[in-house]
Amino acid sequence: MWDGFEGIVAQFERDDVVKVRARAKLYNDQLELTVENVIPVAEKDYELADFLPHTKQDVEKLYARLNEAVHAAENPWVKTLLVSVVEDASIAPKLKRAPAAMTMHHAYIGGLLEHVVSLIELSRLVASHYPELNRDLLLAGIVLHDIGKIEELSCARGFGYTTEGQLLGHIALGQAIVRRKIEAISDFPRPLAAVIEHLILSHHGSLEFGSPRLPLTREAVALHFLDDLDSKMAAIETTMASDAGIGDWTERNPALRRNLLRTSQYLAEPPSEPASKAASAGIAMHAAAPKGTDGSKP
Amino acid sequence: MWDGFEGIVAQFERDDVVKVRARAKLYNDQLELTVENVIPVAEKDYELADFLPHTKQDVEKLYARLNEAVHAAENPWVKTLLVSVVEDASIAPKLKRAPAAMTMHHAYIGGLLEHVVSLIELSRLVASHYPELNRDLLLAGIVLHDIGKIEELSCARGFGYTTEGQLLGHIALGQAIVRRKIEAISDFPRPLAAVIEHLILSHHGSLEFGSPRLPLTREAVALHFLDDLDSKMAAIETTMASDAGIGDWTERNPALRRNLLRTSQYLAEPPSEPASKAASAGIAMHAAAPKGTDGSKP
Amino acid sequence: MWDGFEGIVAQFERDDVVKVRARAKLYNDQLELTVENVIPVAEKDYELADFLPHTKQDVEKLYARLNEAVHAAENPWVKTLLVSVVEDASIAPKLKRAPAAMTMHHAYIGGLLEHVVSLIELSRLVASHYPELNRDLLLAGIVLHDIGKIEELSCARGFGYTTEGQLLGHIALGQAIVRRKIEAISDFPRPLAAVIEHLILSHHGSLEFGSPRLPLTREAVALHFLDDLDSKMAAIETTMASDAGIGDWTERNPALRRNLLRTSQYLAEPPSEPASKAASAGIAMHAAAPKGTDGSKP
Amino acid sequence: MWDGFEGIVAQFERDDVVKVRARAKLYNDQLELTVENVIPVAEKDYELADFLPHTKQDVEKLYARLNEAVHAAENPWVKTLLVSVVEDASIAPKLKRAPAAMTMHHAYIGGLLEHVVSLIELSRLVASHYPELNRDLLLAGIVLHDIGKIEELSCARGFGYTTEGQLLGHIALGQAIVRRKIEAISDFPRPLAAVIEHLILSHHGSLEFGSPRLPLTREAVALHFLDDLDSKMAAIETTMASDAGIGDWTERNPALRRNLLRTSQYLAEPPSEPASKAASAGIAMHAAAPKGTDGSKP
Amino acid sequence: MWDGFEGIVAQFERDDVVKVRARAKLYNDQLELTVENVIPVAEKDYELADFLPHTKQDVEKLYARLNEAVHAAENPWVKTLLVSVVEDASIAPKLKRAPAAMTMHHAYIGGLLEHVVSLIELSRLVASHYPELNRDLLLAGIVLHDIGKIEELSCARGFGYTTEGQLLGHIALGQAIVRRKIEAISDFPRPLAAVIEHLILSHHGSLEFGSPRLPLTREAVALHFLDDLDSKMAAIETTMASDAGIGDWTERNPALRRNLLRTSQYLAEPPSEPASKAASAGIAMHAAAPKGTDGSKP
Amino acid sequence: MWDGFEGIVAQFERDDVVKVRARAKLYNDQLELTVENVIPVAEKDYELADFLPHTKQDVEKLYARLNEAVHAAENPWVKTLLVSVVEDASIAPKLKRAPAAMTMHHAYIGGLLEHVVSLIELSRLVASHYPELNRDLLLAGIVLHDIGKIEELSCARGFGYTTEGQLLGHIALGQAIVRRKIEAISDFPRPLAAVIEHLILSHHGSLEFGSPRLPLTREAVALHFLDDLDSKMAAIETTMASDAGIGDWTERNPALRRNLLRTSQYLAEPPSEPASKAASAGIAMHAAAPKGTDGSKP
Repeated sequence: MWDGFEGIVAQFERDDVVKVRARAKLYNDQLELTVENVIPVAEKDYELADFLPHTKQDVEKLYARLNEAVHAAENPWVKTLLVSVVEDASIAPKLKRAPAAMTMHHAYIGGLLEHVVSLIELSRLVASHYPELNRDLLLAGIVLHDIGKIEELSCARGFGYTTEGQLLGHIALGQAIVRRKIEAISDFPRPLAAVIEHLILSHHGSLEFGSPRLPLTREAVALHFLDDLDSKMAAIETTMASDAGIGDWTERNPALRRNLLRTSQYLAEPPSEPASKAASAGIAMHAAAPKGTDGSKP
Repeated sequence: MWDGFEGIVAQFERDDVVKVRARAKLYNDQLELTVENVIPVAEKDYELADFLPHTKQDVEKLYARLNEAVHAAENPWVKTLLVSVVEDASIAPKLKRAPAAMTMHHAYIGGLLEHVVSLIELSRLVASHYPELNRDLLLAGIVLHDIGKIEELSCARGFGYTTEGQLLGHIALGQAIVRRKIEAISDFPRPLAAVIEHLILSHHGSLEFGSPRLPLTREAVALHFLDDLDSKMAAIETTMASDAGIGDWTERNPALRRNLLRTSQYLAEPPSEPASKAASAGIAMHAAAPKGTDGSKP
Repeated sequence: MWDGFEGIVAQFERDDVVKVRARAKLYNDQLELTVENVIPVAEKDYELADFLPHTKQDVEKLYARLNEAVHAAENPWVKTLLVSVVEDASIAPKLKRAPAAMTMHHAYIGGLLEHVVSLIELSRLVASHYPELNRDLLLAGIVLHDIGKIEELSCARGFGYTTEGQLLGHIALGQAIVRRKIEAISDFPRPLAAVIEHLILSHHGSLEFGSPRLPLTREAVALHFLDDLDSKMAAIETTMASDAGIGDWTERNPALRRNLLRTSQYLAEPPSEPASKAASAGIAMHAAAPKGTDGSKP
Repeated sequence: MWDGFEGIVAQFERDDVVKVRARAKLYNDQLELTVENVIPVAEKDYELADFLPHTKQDVEKLYARLNEAVHAAENPWVKTLLVSVVEDASIAPKLKRAPAAMTMHHAYIGGLLEHVVSLIELSRLVASHYPELNRDLLLAGIVLHDIGKIEELSCARGFGYTTEGQLLGHIALGQAIVRRKIEAISDFPRPLAAVIEHLILSHHGSLEFGSPRLPLTREAVALHFLDDLDSKMAAIETTMASDAGIGDWTERNPALRRNLLRTSQYLAEPPSEPASKAASAGIAMHAAAPKGTDGSKP
Repeated sequence: MWDGFEGIVAQFERDDVVKVRARAKLYNDQLELTVENVIPVAEKDYELADFLPHTKQDVEKLYARLNEAVHAAENPWVKTLLVSVVEDASIAPKLKRAPAAMTMHHAYIGGLLEHVVSLIELSRLVASHYPELNRDLLLAGIVLHDIGKIEELSCARGFGYTTEGQLLGHIALGQAIVRRKIEAISDFPRPLAAVIEHLILSHHGSLEFGSPRLPLTREAVALHFLDDLDSKMAAIETTMASDAGIGDWTERNPALRRNLLRTSQYLAEPPSEPASKAASAGIAMHAAAPKGTDGSKP
Repeated sequence: MWDGFEGIVAQFERDDVVKVRARAKLYNDQLELTVENVIPVAEKDYELADFLPHTKQDVEKLYARLNEAVHAAENPWVKTLLVSVVEDASIAPKLKRAPAAMTMHHAYIGGLLEHVVSLIELSRLVASHYPELNRDLLLAGIVLHDIGKIEELSCARGFGYTTEGQLLGHIALGQAIVRRKIEAISDFPRPLAAVIEHLILSHHGSLEFGSPRLPLTREAVALHFLDDLDSKMAAIETTMASDAGIGDWTERNPALRRNLLRTSQYLAEPPSEPASKAASAGIAMHAAAPKGTDGSKP
């Protein structure tokens, strides 16, 4: 086929979806393909979800849980605001598709929604433990903190940053989305608006992580912790689930920048009863571990 | 009285408890005391708890909740270890008195116990959300992470660091306490011991905060987050409850190194219903706030 | 008078302006005042400008120069946007009063306007040297970069941060002001809007100084440099003009965090012609200088 | 030819200029060379400028502009010093060849001279805006700040650091050159000498960038800013002019360590007049941008 | 042979020692091996030392010098403790094999012993200069500071970290070894124990290098310096001895993260007598040096 | 006397030495002075050494030891250079007076000389342990590294920085002194000169401590370590010798920025023989220690 190579190449661009016709043969027990033709496919003829990783959960159910939570807010201003965001016809479809991040955690179609719903449920538990936390404010922070990702990230063909995303970032984009929604609600109390926008601005927790303000309210501090915890738990889950790594050690986790130890066997296998010689001696503590994961001086 | 001043002074030392006899009078509407005598008091004649801040909770009840949690561990090794620590006759009384820190959070008699029990309950909630977390390991981390504080901090007369505490720190002291307990349990699996000691060593989360190892297991990462969250929530509660500060802003929170905003009124007072002019206009957004709490360039 | 002390005190609050009636006498050659009464003054009865430091320049003339510059923009979108901001009836009066910072530079009534006009003129000169810089974008960045200060800082009675200013900061506040103005211009090109908002977000130059984005365009880089240069030159001028300090050394400059050397005499006095013994030997190089202004190891 | 390979190789060394004799043929439409001989070329037989990148400007004209500026200094000591440096027969030829840096900016033959002349002209403009800046001191700083590069960098065959350059750096080398010139001028005022040498030592602006002293005079602060601005503008120009990068985004700029956005089209094409639908909608804001250029948390 | 490839591969694992039978031939003047068979070798049939780098010194002699030093301690507690560690039958063989680090310095069999013995001798010299240093404490610090490496590092087949080593680190492992030994000595004074354990905990000198405590005693400060100096001198020696590098410059030294200059020839060759033209002019100062070894701004 | 107060004050200035005539009386058992007159004293009428702290050693003997060491250098170039510096009639007297630092270590008349002589002797011991160190280069580094202090610091009346010292720092001043001396020696090999000047420039060990170059030779690395060690040992000695502090803990050491523990009693008092109950139980490990000396999280 490669006679017409240049003509074929001219038909598609980076990130286009194509159909490939090829001839297969076995060579040294490995499958080898000889490409015969490459044909671009129109967007209507394929499902993006077939080419990008996506959440294992049902996006519509996640959305329903989000919507339910939002309608359960007690404070009427908070409820009106959150409903107006979540049910916005131009926001909802994007919310159902956006990943929560490019690579660090929940990096798949529906990841943002999965992250938000996880946080809503986590925050209910945590707020039951710290009753001084205002549940409505915390809910507002959770629902809105990453809303700018729907404009920052593109998942048209593959995941990427939009130019607007690069220039402004999801924190400023999110604040702008929320402010517009607030301005559309007549008489929304301005102090409450500032407290809510502050949740978005401060949720990365420190200036060097891109938050232009430090968390200054109880709920802003809690939001930062919960967001960070949920991201890290998801990132660890992904690494732990992967086959990569050596022995009990995982490959390097990109969010934590270290290898992690899988400890399931240390407890899962029935250990000997205390005070009797343990069968678990079989777990060799002196097996090789990855080199220098914590930067301390050797 | 001051004729015999030096003789009186010679009878007591820094941090001794004394009785003072003085004559009171009113001067410019203020009470003025003229000291007549100062008499040292024997330790048996006073209650330390009357001179040091202490938890508002019932220490024995806290201890009972801790003990119950420890007995509920499923893994027999973990359970045996934790019981042997918590019920140790030389540890239990110290555990009931120790503060959780000198100044940052839970800085009062019984503070350590209060912090640990709070974490146990928080961790149950969080573990129900992330079922991949091993509850026994997390429990071990929570019960043991700060156990070294009973040797690091002294609360004989006032709070202070012991010389041993200064030289070794509560992380190393805690690991030593736990290792001795582990060695007293015959056949305790060494790999499990390492995983448990790692929880203590890594719980500050980073080298520059004094942990000689970074958290390398799922539970170690979670422990660091939960410990940090509970400490911060307690520190915030203390600051919020204080009268100090200006307007809605608190005094400087020592753990977070910033002033915090009390937001209760922003939501607590029944706001106008959305779409009608708000009464909340009374909250002045332009009132003075503390200066430069976040270190960003003005 | 102090009989009625409490009644008097109850009449005014922090930052109120009051009239004081007092009796003067000389004591040890120093004037001593015995206060007899303190009476609050209504806002209409005094000029704020009499109690706060203010620019030495004519605010209306500064405003006229700004307005002229804005009308001279060539790009119609930029021009429409800038005019809509500068001539906004609710913005203009605040723009004429706001200081450029609380303490670091131009910390006086009219300081923001003075800083912006200085930058406009500086940027014309610099843009003539680097013709690749787009003058309209640079102008937009200069006029808008600190516009959020009119909401961040309060100068009602003294300078201070508003609660909204603390929660959101002038960068996010500025972006919101500008975005609302852009949305009011029909068909404003969204890419251009992003490029302009980026100038505001990135003008502090780095995350740790509170910019959530790094400068990513030529004009954003230049804006950061020019803003920083103009701030530092003004801060230095203030320190140099003060009598404080020792010998040729000024007091500590808060923006640069070091003492500075006044070098005027090193060149101002007519030095001997080269090749003849200098009269300038009178400048003692070995006079005492402030201690350790640069943090290097002694 | 490769029979005599080792003999041929022995005739030249790394960075030598050689003549190659080869036979050309076409293979798959690409030119292929079969080397037949390699002959070293004597230094007199080639022009270095043919093998190294060089300024697009006329070096002699640049030198003339520098010389003119130096002669225009008003202060006789400064003028004598600068003339003695610039017209030094052993310095001038090196000054005409040296690059301004190895890779960051003006990294070509004549780059140092181009950088200095650009700064002279920029500083005249800036000094007209800040008349408190002493023009002679600023000129001295500009002409001398990088003079040590003529000893730090080697451009005999390719650009590289000399061993002396590695051991001492251009800042110390430059100070030594200037001090020797000052000592050759009888009665040069020592305080003025210190102020001038300080400009060289402090021009990197901070200790971690290799300046052993922080800028402590008005002119030293300004010199650091202008030097940094001119370097960055030149570095940006180089990156912008390169074809590399994706879409509107350039390749990574080594001096700024980020990708930059080319914004020319955002303003250059005649936008619709405000208030009418814009043709510029064609600029896709959501096109892919480079990943994570600013280090903030995703 | 490769017909039975999979069967052969199944016989051994990573880091196993194998015998290879191969046929050699010359191809283009280079030796080429055609592998015919690979046979695992039992541990008893080879010497580990033949496959891992090892100290050039005689390990038994090093051990004897260590033992002699330990017996020469004056303080009976210190002496008893050190002897109990060094002569422990389960510790001694490990001590003779362990490397001092994975890569940075003394990274070979016997390296730890070599490092400790070098430090003992260095410390005697230094203590003779600073008589205020307590020799017994310093000796204890030197002998014990890296004792945890025998559990942190594995040299069974190749060098690596054990899982226990990764989880706990050699500092905590070392402290635990020492504490157990101390507890075995009846009535060992607890204050002295704390001072000795502190030497281990603090010997990295700062938190960010993995020491959970800063050095707080004179001997702890000295130990950190001497340990660091000896490590660096050994690391430099290795780099200097390698042929890698360009001209007088070595390859990059991993411990110092920079290239180093070999200066031997600068002094070794008999220079001309002062005041006569030097033959050493042959050393070209302007030869190429490595690029940017110190991170300063070019 | 205070009638003529202003006239008296006009007669002297800051740092002048004065005679005071006063009347003494006892008041509450404390001596009280009533000043009657203050008379300036001419410089010839007092000894500076009576008013500034000075070394306890004999300065002339220190100088003799330095001179002897310098004359013992083997390399003729190094020897010629060092002798020309040490015996320079304008340098020697300053060398005998200069302190080694303002506050950190050896902060007294003669301190620089004491520090240099201590280093010479320390370096001989260390070089006997690391024979690969070139003794002449190390000697050159030791003698010359702080020579710039004679121009950086002023001890005319009290210790202070000279203006030249502030502007240039002792590193650049020292390099200039040495370069001038080298240029006075005909045919001094330039490579050797660079290696020696590098020792001065790099002796602070890192850019952020004010060295414009990192140590790049074996001797430069060693010099940095030895200089740092000797400074710290002297600083510790001063703190240990002071009565300030609480119990075994010293006051805060300014060079190390922490409190230190005096351990002498831990070993000095004859401890019980091992294996018998110790009398040393009297040393209370739980006595109060200073608060938070190491910045780790409580």
